[in-house]
Amino acid sequence: MRKFQFRCSECGAAYREDEVRLVCPACARQQKPGGVTRGVLEVVLEELPSTWPSAPPSSAEFLSAFLPISSPESLPPLAVGGTPLLEVPELRRALGLRRLWVKDDTRNPSGSTKDRASLLVLAKAKEYACETVAAASTGNAATALAAIAAASGIRAVVFVPASVPEAKLVQMLSYGALVLPVDGTYDDAFELCLAACEEFGWYNRNTALNPFTIEGKKTAAIEIAADLAPEIPDAVLIPTGDGVILAGLAKGFADLERCGLIKRLPRLIAVQPEGSAAIVNALGKGADTITPVPGAASVADSLTVQAPRNALQCLRSIRASGGGGVTVSDKAIIKAVAELARQTGVFAEPAGAAPLAGLQAALDKGLVDRDERVVLLITGTGLKDIPAASRAVQKPSPIPLRIEAVAKRLQHLSKG
Amino acid sequence: MRKFQFRCSECGAAYREDEVRLVCPACARQQKPGGVTRGVLEVVLEELPSTWPSAPPSSAEFLSAFLPISSPESLPPLAVGGTPLLEVPELRRALGLRRLWVKDDTRNPSGSTKDRASLLVLAKAKEYACETVAAASTGNAATALAAIAAASGIRAVVFVPASVPEAKLVQMLSYGALVLPVDGTYDDAFELCLAACEEFGWYNRNTALNPFTIEGKKTAAIEIAADLAPEIPDAVLIPTGDGVILAGLAKGFADLERCGLIKRLPRLIAVQPEGSAAIVNALGKGADTITPVPGAASVADSLTVQAPRNALQCLRSIRASGGGGVTVSDKAIIKAVAELARQTGVFAEPAGAAPLAGLQAALDKGLVDRDERVVLLITGTGLKDIPAASRAVQKPSPIPLRIEAVAKRLQHLSKG
Repeated sequence: MRKFQFRCSECGAAYREDEVRLVCPACARQQKPGGVTRGVLEVVLEELPSTWPSAPPSSAEFLSAFLPISSPESLPPLAVGGTPLLEVPELRRALGLRRLWVKDDTRNPSGSTKDRASLLVLAKAKEYACETVAAASTGNAATALAAIAAASGIRAVVFVPASVPEAKLVQMLSYGALVLPVDGTYDDAFELCLAACEEFGWYNRNTALNPFTIEGKKTAAIEIAADLAPEIPDAVLIPTGDGVILAGLAKGFADLERCGLIKRLPRLIAVQPEGSAAIVNALGKGADTITPVPGAASVADSLTVQAPRNALQCLRSIRASGGGGVTVSDKAIIKAVAELARQTGVFAEPAGAAPLAGLQAALDKGLVDRDERVVLLITGTGLKDIPAASRAVQKPSPIPLRIEAVAKRLQHLSKG
Repeated sequence: MRKFQFRCSECGAAYREDEVRLVCPACARQQKPGGVTRGVLEVVLEELPSTWPSAPPSSAEFLSAFLPISSPESLPPLAVGGTPLLEVPELRRALGLRRLWVKDDTRNPSGSTKDRASLLVLAKAKEYACETVAAASTGNAATALAAIAAASGIRAVVFVPASVPEAKLVQMLSYGALVLPVDGTYDDAFELCLAACEEFGWYNRNTALNPFTIEGKKTAAIEIAADLAPEIPDAVLIPTGDGVILAGLAKGFADLERCGLIKRLPRLIAVQPEGSAAIVNALGKGADTITPVPGAASVADSLTVQAPRNALQCLRSIRASGGGGVTVSDKAIIKAVAELARQTGVFAEPAGAAPLAGLQAALDKGLVDRDERVVLLITGTGLKDIPAASRAVQKPSPIPLRIEAVAKRLQHLSKG
C-alpha cells in the first residue's frame, strides 16, 4: 500500500526494499563487534497523510497511513499504541508546570513502548514470510516480540542477560518464546543474536539494526502530536538506553513536519541513568560518537547498555531538535517511581519513571522552562519490576481484626 | 447531567440520590455479618442514548452518555476502559471457534477491570466532596482505587488479606494508598472496612455494597456491544468471585436492550474456581441464595471468597440472560494462563485466564456452541501474579556466549 525506500542515516545511500533487510551494506563494513551500529537505515515513505486520520491510533486505518506496510492485512492482531496522553493535574500542581502531560505507554499489550517496534517488525516478517524472528533485549523488547509473535503465529527466539528481572522472564516464557538467557551483558546478547540470525536464517529484530524498530516507535510521536494538535509540544523527555526510542520519536515528528501536520519539531531530551550515560556524556562533550561505558549499571535495567547501538542517529536527532540530555541517579529514579504513581496514578518501572526524575534536572539545566508544553514519555509498567518499586515504599505489618487496630494505625501515621 | 434514581434489586423500592448512599435501608435490616449483601441498589438512568456515541469509549463524552454523573468534570483524569476486543486468529484456530473474541481488560490503568468501578466511584466521591474513599479487596479493587484516587487527589484506605500477592501490594503502596493488611480473609477485610467507614466517615467503595461499582463495570459490556455491533455476542464468559463484574456486565447489556441499541441479551456464563464456587454451586442446585464456602481457596486469589457479596443479584442476572456457570480446577487455570498468552499475546493473572479454562467446560456442558459468537472477558494482567504464571513455564538455564551453545539448545528442544 505505502511505497517507500530505505535511506542510510550515515552516508545517505538509498535502497529499495528488495535490496536490503537490516543496515546499509556500504557502512556496515566499518562495523566493529560490540560497537555502535553503522549504517542504520531510515524508512522514507513516498507519501504521508496531509490531514490527521479520523480513525483511532491503534486502528489499521491509522497505522497504514503512517507505516511502510504493503497491506493492513500484514498487521498483527494485537492492538498496539493508542495509549493515553494524560493531563496529570496533581503532578502539574506539585511541580508548578501548567502544561505538562504524561504519555502513558505502560498501557501497551506487553506493557512497554517496545510493542510499537515489534508490531511493525512482525508485520514485515509476515510480508517477508519469515518463520522465526529473533532479538536481543534487556527484557522489554524480548517480551514485546514474544507477545506479538504469539498473536501472529510466528516463532520468537530471544536473547537476554541472565540477570533479566523475573517478571519479564516469566512473561516472555508465558508467550511461548524460545528464551536464551546468556552468561553476559545485554551487549553480549546482542552479538550472539547477530551470529545466530546469520547461522540459522532468522529475521533479526535487534533494535537499531532492524530499521522497522525505529519506524514502529515513531507512532508514539504521531499520537502525542495528534492528541495535542493544533498545539505542539515544546519538549519531550525520553528514557534513553540504546537511543532507538528517541530516534523513533524524532522520526515521527520529522515525518509530521515533512507533511505539514506540525510546523516545528519539539526539543527531544534524553534521560539516562548516571551509571549508563554514554549518549548524554557525548552530548556534553560535543562528540559525534560515544565512548562506551564498561560495566554500565543502573536500577533501570532497560536503560543499561555499554555501547548504545543507535548512538549516532540518536545524537543527530537530539541536536536537530535543539534538545539535550540529562543524567539521573538511581536514587532519583526510585523516588520518581513512587512520585509518578502517587501524583498521576501511572505505575512505571524504573526506566519508565526516569523522565520524571530527568524533568527536575532539565529544569535546573535550563533545558525546559516551567511555562512550556512538556511531555514525559513513560515507557514501561512498574509491574515488570516489583523489587525496584518496593525500594520506595514501606510494607505495613498486618493488623488484627479490630476497629481499634485501624484507629491505632491512623494515629501512628498522623504522627509519622 | 444524567438524571437517575436508585432501585433496590431485592424489594424494588426507589430512592433519590440524596436519600441513600450504599444499600436499600429496608433490606439492609436483614443483613447478616459476613453474609451476602442485602438490598444492593441499581442505578436507573432517566435517559440513555438512542445511538452509539461517536467518541471513543474512554472519552468523557462516551462515559457521560452512559454513567450517572452530574458533569464530565467529575471524571478522574485517568483513561479507563476503551480496551480492545481482539479477534485472536490463533486461538480461534486452536479451538475451532470461528467467532471467538477476547476482551482484553488487562489494559486498564492499574491492570484490571476493577478500574472501571473505581472510575465511577471516584467521580461520585468528587461530587459528594468525600476526602477519603475506602475499600476491602483481594487486591485488584484496592489497587484500582489507589491508582484512580492518586490521579484525583483523594485519599484511599484499603483493607486486604495479609496474603495479598506481592505485586498487588507494592503497586497499591506505590500509588500512596493507606494499606491495612488484615490478619484474616477477604471476607474479614470486608467486615472491618464496613466498620471503619462507619467509624471514620469514609466513603465505602466495597464491591456489591457501593452501587457505583456495578454501574461502573457495565462499561465493559457497552464496549463489547459497540465493537461487535450490529452483531450481538451469544455468550460472554466472566471470571466470578463476588459476582459484581458479572452483574455489571448484565447491567450494561440490560441498559443497551432498554434503549434499543441491542435487540437481545447475551447469555452470561460465570466461571469460578472449584475451590471457591458458591455461585455456580447455587446455580446447579437451582437455589436463590448461596451456601458460603468456608476455607475457600484457589490459585486465582481475585476469585477467592467464602460468601460472594453480590450473589443474589448475580444469580438473577445469569438466569435472566439464559446463561449458566462452570467450575474450573486450579490446574486448568494455570494451564489457561500459558495457553492464552501463547495463542493470543494476552498475559493474564489466574482469575483473568479462568474464562479460557471455563470455555472448554462450557462447550462440554453444552452451554456454548462452537458456531456461536463467544467473548472471553480477561479481567487482570499476568504481571500481577508472576509466581502463579511461573508454575506453567520452565525456566531455561543460561548459555555460554557461543553459537554452538545456541545450536545445542535448539537441538535439545526439537528432541524434547
